Amino acid sequence: MKKSLGALPAVFPMPVLMIGTYDENGKVDVMNAAWGMISDMDQITLFLGGDRKTVSNMHKTGAFTVALADHAHMKEADFFGIASGNKMEDKFERTGLTAVKSERVNAPVIEEFPLTMECEFVEEVNSETLHCYVGKIVNVLADEAVLDETGKVRPSKLNAILFDQFRNGYYTIGERVGKAWNAGAGLYKGEE
Amino acid sequence: MKKSLGALPAVFPMPVLMIGTYDENGKVDVMNAAWGMISDMDQITLFLGGDRKTVSNMHKTGAFTVALADHAHMKEADFFGIASGNKMEDKFERTGLTAVKSERVNAPVIEEFPLTMECEFVEEVNSETLHCYVGKIVNVLADEAVLDETGKVRPSKLNAILFDQFRNGYYTIGERVGKAWNAGAGLYKGEE
Repeated sequence: MKKSLGALPAVFPMPVLMIGTYDENGKVDVMNAAWGMISDMDQITLFLGGDRKTVSNMHKTGAFTVALADHAHMKEADFFGIASGNKMEDKFERTGLTAVKSERVNAPVIEEFPLTMECEFVEEVNSETLHCYVGKIVNVLADEAVLDETGKVRPSKLNAILFDQFRNGYYTIGERVGKAWNAGAGLYKGEE
Repeated sequence: MKKSLGALPAVFPMPVLMIGTYDENGKVDVMNAAWGMISDMDQITLFLGGDRKTVSNMHKTGAFTVALADHAHMKEADFFGIASGNKMEDKFERTGLTAVKSERVNAPVIEEFPLTMECEFVEEVNSETLHCYVGKIVNVLADEAVLDETGKVRPSKLNAILFDQFRNGYYTIGERVGKAWNAGAGLYKGEE
């Protein structure tokens, strides 16, 4: 039996993205955003509402970083979603996290997060229905500890958290249960 | 020590979205897409490349549905990502899944998936850098079994899977480890 719940933002899971920017004085801001996704092989699109410090920063610097929040830094990641860089002067400083300037774009890399996309801010899109910010991913930085012997990211080492917008929860990642473009191969070949 | 991996689609986790459409004859197609996200409280945006049956269908019908793939139907979900509706005549039929017409939009609801967004297709956006499809979520249908006593979706009941694009894996959801806009409240109040 299916129930109607009305119009809800019901994508699940969502990532916990840490958007890092500098203001015109080189001051670091980080915000927490779940509404962002890869939009091409080297592109990420962010759906950010309201009067964000992040947005004014990326317009000034032409850049941002996107890191994945991990379980060890859930407290800081959540705080970045509660506090506003427009209102709290020491927002980044009070987390005690460490920012270094990206070598490729004019945006900060937060050392403590395990993986960071370094992005050029390429376009603000305002169509009839859509409002979003597009970034070109120029490089991905990852802690050596999250890579396997071939240099690929191993999700089980990331300890990334995910966001549940139904009940505002953070979850860890569970077990690997299948291989994509393989789990359904039997159906494809007509064997099942 | 951080390593540079080059430009990669490094959002993690990604959802496993099942996009359901009808063609002009009422024939069901379902595709598997990871690159989709909520873009407003009642809006979802899909980043779909190539010559998709889904795209020609949504242009004809003005509608699509987006369901969340669950672990029990991982095989079918993955198959929808391998097979092309343009090339395989019996793509949907060979899964044995059941489609019923949405009461709200001209698109199919796949009975076996636990949660489905019923969407009007409102815009194809082609900006200088971005190419995407925007849907207005008019309603969410969920199996009673995944709701709690207040009628909210309980993620632990969904058994949704997530996609890992680093290594093309499917994962289950882990443990709830925190509450959003709460886990970082101590930092906000200056208690930590």
